[in-house]
Amino acid sequence: MKAVVYQGPFSVAVEEVPDPELMHPNDVIVKITSSCICGSDLHMYEGRTAAEPGIVFGHENMGVIEDVGSAVKTLSVGDRVVMPFNVGCGFCKNCQRGFTGFCVTVNPGFAGGAYGYVAMGPWRGGQAEYIQVPYADFNCLPLPAGDAFEWDFSLLADIFPTGYHGTELADVSPGESVAVWGAGPVGLMAIYSCVIRGAAEIYSIDHVQERLDKASEIGAIPINFDDGDPVEQIRDMRGGDGVDKTVDAVGYQAAAQGSSAAGGEQVEVPNVVLNQMIDLINPTGIMGIPGLYVPSDPGGVDEGAKRGALSINFGKLFEKGLKLGTGQCNVKQYNAYLRDLIISGKATPSFVVSHEVPLDDAVDAYHKFDKRIDGYTKVILKP
Amino acid sequence: MKAVVYQGPFSVAVEEVPDPELMHPNDVIVKITSSCICGSDLHMYEGRTAAEPGIVFGHENMGVIEDVGSAVKTLSVGDRVVMPFNVGCGFCKNCQRGFTGFCVTVNPGFAGGAYGYVAMGPWRGGQAEYIQVPYADFNCLPLPAGDAFEWDFSLLADIFPTGYHGTELADVSPGESVAVWGAGPVGLMAIYSCVIRGAAEIYSIDHVQERLDKASEIGAIPINFDDGDPVEQIRDMRGGDGVDKTVDAVGYQAAAQGSSAAGGEQVEVPNVVLNQMIDLINPTGIMGIPGLYVPSDPGGVDEGAKRGALSINFGKLFEKGLKLGTGQCNVKQYNAYLRDLIISGKATPSFVVSHEVPLDDAVDAYHKFDKRIDGYTKVILKP
Amino acid sequence: MKAVVYQGPFSVAVEEVPDPELMHPNDVIVKITSSCICGSDLHMYEGRTAAEPGIVFGHENMGVIEDVGSAVKTLSVGDRVVMPFNVGCGFCKNCQRGFTGFCVTVNPGFAGGAYGYVAMGPWRGGQAEYIQVPYADFNCLPLPAGDAFEWDFSLLADIFPTGYHGTELADVSPGESVAVWGAGPVGLMAIYSCVIRGAAEIYSIDHVQERLDKASEIGAIPINFDDGDPVEQIRDMRGGDGVDKTVDAVGYQAAAQGSSAAGGEQVEVPNVVLNQMIDLINPTGIMGIPGLYVPSDPGGVDEGAKRGALSINFGKLFEKGLKLGTGQCNVKQYNAYLRDLIISGKATPSFVVSHEVPLDDAVDAYHKFDKRIDGYTKVILKP
Amino acid sequence: MKAVVYQGPFSVAVEEVPDPELMHPNDVIVKITSSCICGSDLHMYEGRTAAEPGIVFGHENMGVIEDVGSAVKTLSVGDRVVMPFNVGCGFCKNCQRGFTGFCVTVNPGFAGGAYGYVAMGPWRGGQAEYIQVPYADFNCLPLPAGDAFEWDFSLLADIFPTGYHGTELADVSPGESVAVWGAGPVGLMAIYSCVIRGAAEIYSIDHVQERLDKASEIGAIPINFDDGDPVEQIRDMRGGDGVDKTVDAVGYQAAAQGSSAAGGEQVEVPNVVLNQMIDLINPTGIMGIPGLYVPSDPGGVDEGAKRGALSINFGKLFEKGLKLGTGQCNVKQYNAYLRDLIISGKATPSFVVSHEVPLDDAVDAYHKFDKRIDGYTKVILKP
Repeated sequence: MKAVVYQGPFSVAVEEVPDPELMHPNDVIVKITSSCICGSDLHMYEGRTAAEPGIVFGHENMGVIEDVGSAVKTLSVGDRVVMPFNVGCGFCKNCQRGFTGFCVTVNPGFAGGAYGYVAMGPWRGGQAEYIQVPYADFNCLPLPAGDAFEWDFSLLADIFPTGYHGTELADVSPGESVAVWGAGPVGLMAIYSCVIRGAAEIYSIDHVQERLDKASEIGAIPINFDDGDPVEQIRDMRGGDGVDKTVDAVGYQAAAQGSSAAGGEQVEVPNVVLNQMIDLINPTGIMGIPGLYVPSDPGGVDEGAKRGALSINFGKLFEKGLKLGTGQCNVKQYNAYLRDLIISGKATPSFVVSHEVPLDDAVDAYHKFDKRIDGYTKVILKP
Repeated sequence: MKAVVYQGPFSVAVEEVPDPELMHPNDVIVKITSSCICGSDLHMYEGRTAAEPGIVFGHENMGVIEDVGSAVKTLSVGDRVVMPFNVGCGFCKNCQRGFTGFCVTVNPGFAGGAYGYVAMGPWRGGQAEYIQVPYADFNCLPLPAGDAFEWDFSLLADIFPTGYHGTELADVSPGESVAVWGAGPVGLMAIYSCVIRGAAEIYSIDHVQERLDKASEIGAIPINFDDGDPVEQIRDMRGGDGVDKTVDAVGYQAAAQGSSAAGGEQVEVPNVVLNQMIDLINPTGIMGIPGLYVPSDPGGVDEGAKRGALSINFGKLFEKGLKLGTGQCNVKQYNAYLRDLIISGKATPSFVVSHEVPLDDAVDAYHKFDKRIDGYTKVILKP
Repeated sequence: MKAVVYQGPFSVAVEEVPDPELMHPNDVIVKITSSCICGSDLHMYEGRTAAEPGIVFGHENMGVIEDVGSAVKTLSVGDRVVMPFNVGCGFCKNCQRGFTGFCVTVNPGFAGGAYGYVAMGPWRGGQAEYIQVPYADFNCLPLPAGDAFEWDFSLLADIFPTGYHGTELADVSPGESVAVWGAGPVGLMAIYSCVIRGAAEIYSIDHVQERLDKASEIGAIPINFDDGDPVEQIRDMRGGDGVDKTVDAVGYQAAAQGSSAAGGEQVEVPNVVLNQMIDLINPTGIMGIPGLYVPSDPGGVDEGAKRGALSINFGKLFEKGLKLGTGQCNVKQYNAYLRDLIISGKATPSFVVSHEVPLDDAVDAYHKFDKRIDGYTKVILKP
Repeated sequence: MKAVVYQGPFSVAVEEVPDPELMHPNDVIVKITSSCICGSDLHMYEGRTAAEPGIVFGHENMGVIEDVGSAVKTLSVGDRVVMPFNVGCGFCKNCQRGFTGFCVTVNPGFAGGAYGYVAMGPWRGGQAEYIQVPYADFNCLPLPAGDAFEWDFSLLADIFPTGYHGTELADVSPGESVAVWGAGPVGLMAIYSCVIRGAAEIYSIDHVQERLDKASEIGAIPINFDDGDPVEQIRDMRGGDGVDKTVDAVGYQAAAQGSSAAGGEQVEVPNVVLNQMIDLINPTGIMGIPGLYVPSDPGGVDEGAKRGALSINFGKLFEKGLKLGTGQCNVKQYNAYLRDLIISGKATPSFVVSHEVPLDDAVDAYHKFDKRIDGYTKVILKP
């Protein structure tokens, strides 16, 4: 079958690889109908990870079941399903408590597995024609038959739940004020989740105008940080008050204010979002941090950043009595509920999708997505 | 000053009563700008309680501060405020844990106080020109100056938080399915709160078409129980499935199916909603019960009902592993958040208001509201 | 192999039955080392259920793994394990949220499965030499090798978690006052769980002196309800105050006050515990109800009781703003934590075990346990 | 009256100061019977804060009511009470949600007030004969009359609730493993709270042998960090496993490993505890941080520390999906429950008290406590 295979920094290819097979009685094989490219794929694509050539990318996968292992109970050939990007077993100490992003079974020696991702276990990605799904009863979310909501459902694999996870970590509740850093796909999904959860005021902080426009369309107040300190901008709007909750949908590759305004190279300041959140949030607040921070970053801006150590205004954080929550999303905690919002017409996250292209065009799509050319912000590959 | 004074069953009058005065250093006097008539006022009006003639009605009060006690810290003459229907002290064991509807200070010998209500303490109601508010720093919610959102804000005293309380008791969460019994003002506010909290499917059960129409307009699926068992109707719509959560916004004066369809006298079946909820809800569900049940009802349909004892399908409730929560709303837990939703334009609960009339027309308004004449469903009195 | 087989009311036999086999790749076969008789086995034994002759009893099972299915990941022959009485799949909508007592996979058409119990699915009981365990990775809790803590660990299958569940449903927290109805094995485990959770005052209500003595030994204040209304007794001790939380470890077969005092037949009053709890508990309290209530009881005391409908003081319950939680225990939510308390020496629940007898003596053990002869209160069968 | 007055670094004096008076109708005057010296008093004493000479110390106060303001409702002359170290109003947006340590009323411009502490508002301390208590209905916790439990109750003002707060922030639950950094008075109270909450394994990390001995006596496993990396020591004991939860009862003045072992000056490493916690804790864990971190520390070890910026292994924290909670204790959330544990005999925190001395000996007591001479670890001053 064909698959997107990593060749080295800034290079992927669509190659023939062996078809996946049922390796275990609890496996199924899914014929991919949609597989999205994720911003986190670009971490590997850009050579900012330890990924070796040969890896098949793709952790945002949906499709139709092609083959079913002998121990599988609830799934049949022909069922339409979407899989969380995390691979979980369903029975380890973390999965059983809902922490399916921290499964200790599927990726020995580490808490957490995923498809097509460096260091996340042996699970081949789904930017391909087929994918093997282990513990299929646990890892497949059933969808209505047919092709309705294909774009919306494909976002259930990762970014819709991940954005939602940010609001869950921050315990965003009706009537609250929230500031969301980052208006890329995950940031927009976090904003959209704030809307779903009934927030009263939502501030969207970014410096890409197109993103801020989208944020504004779904109900957020746009704050362009190239126009000045976003903390001051928001406090000015609120008569000096801060916000109840914050969400970091940026992570460690945060851009310095104004750094790309004149078309120059963007300068990374890995702790800027964390410290701005601490500065803006009101005492007793909670910060949700789904944005990625890594313990090892060869391209880090300084010695601390290379090993994931950041200078954080912890004295201020303590003085305010803040709480924070981090970590990759436990997709399975949310995906059935978010699916039902899509089916009932209460949520349409596909507004974030910019392009759908054939799997064969993946090389071009990666290039344009990475360079943010032609408005490539969220791309779905169709085998 | 003028005030609405209870005369006896089915009789109120607008009479002169003494002006309220500051009785305690923590008091304020509020000049009423809006005071709503509540469905629970009708319990007294209809003689279904122990209320004695002479009581001044009105527990849904808002206005402008006219006078301030010497110990009051945060309020000034001229401030616009709305008061929760519950009177709380702010420091007793219940108030300090947020259970402001169960204050043990303001109504000696009982947990819970309110304005203008039988057995809820000595606090005169606000269907009048002025009202005394004790523990004013605690009991007054500040509002923006002016007269914007007057109708919306007036609903913060009771029915918007009370409807919301039903969804909080049931822990209604994004993506869930919910059935709400009752589409009167509180039921509509519960439905509206389900919308705010991101429910995927909301079923509204009533038998008054106008109410069901309003429920439908705000996003609920209407179920007329005069057309057949609502449990069966909903299961049929859902392929046999039940719902995740239920809210009882009816209480003990529940109507039997079809009992008023032919224009006859409505027959009360006080346990019908509770048992239908137990029947419909899925195992592991939670039932939120803001609808009123009373421990003593002289007009009860049988000996059990007279002392608040109802036949409940507890075996089924246990088999399903259900949870339930009850009780009057602790308004102060929600009112600031709901106010902020109104200010930001994210909530407009005033759609439920049918009439605004001068205080002088209160006699007529009570009569029409009680008989549901001329579409009187939610009435605001203006002194 | 030998197994305890139900013959009809008040009759069991130890018979030869076919050895269990691996039926599914996720199964294991466990060689039983200990299997307890549970109070709920007596419901079947006494003919108070629809159990048909031929059923093999036993849902409190522990032992050593004898054979392992091909799909099992984390277990090996020789591993010592204890199984929750509930059978769960680990991946259905209820199991994944922790409600493993309400699995919708293992007992088609019903939410919840168990070993050796009427209407709980096809899973043969473990009062036998061997047992088949489905979804073994999910359903087996690993234990340290050897035979240490055998009695304590055997209680992890049901009664220790079930008693704990009562305190979890009531959210018993440090410093609170709690009243626990019933001081049988589950009641004692609930009291013990209150101790573990740091309750300040624990009242144990029963009318069997030996039970009250045990409750007293582990730190509870004994209340014999044959001496007078337990609500009044406790209020008298507390200067009129009620309690923060209550736990019902009795269920529907509750005894009337004084009914067996003179040696006469015990009279059942199925709603007595529920209404006493409502009476005693303070406003805003929570009632945890692990005690069994059933939707169909052929031996019920009246027409309502036969179909599980009980007269409950719901008006009072509402006036106090109470919450309640019910249902069979989701053992897997607690068993690993309780196991670790046993291993660390912080919990020794085996004080509740009265007898250990050979499997061959099961007929005698059932008889004595049912009649409460010779102090039979908790019996472990040893194959 | 006499009071302990700050003179400058390492100098206090017992001086005559004016008697406090009722300044507001909600005030009471309390005649102090016990007032403890707190480790955080030493921050001021050692000149590590902006405290100016003249401040009266003392935020751990209990006594008997001497005079009552005209608006006070529930207190009378002669009542025995203990006051939380935080001063709260009871009605601001933070107090009403239970965050009484972040009151926005009592210390204008800042969230949080306290008695006798720099920058915490105008509230004079209680190391004196009398103290003025504002919002007395809210800030006084009633105690049984007499002098029973005097030492235990005095700890309800701060360190018992503060230690407990660490376990609440970490959500320490029955059966969990917990590591507590610091075995000073607050650390011991955190360990004791872990015991109360039913933890299975508790590790106490310090390098003062007397403290580790006390920790061991109440059930913790002592880990002396001068003997080697505490993370490795604990992992070795646990077969490589980490712990479920951690509590930081040290804060920013953390000592480097071995730094004082040879009697030399202790070297501060302000981020050492935070990073060790991140290292030891298992994925999905929660870190409770009641230990003090400050946004401005003139004596900080480097430029970052001087402004409260610490290098934190945030990449690792994220990878593990950790949560953390910080901030000063909201004493009023816990003090009534902890009082009831003392009264019922279930908690006896006074084991941590080392000395009781007359107020007149305060100068000597401060000196010895600061230098840790003669076993001065927790001192109560008696006027």
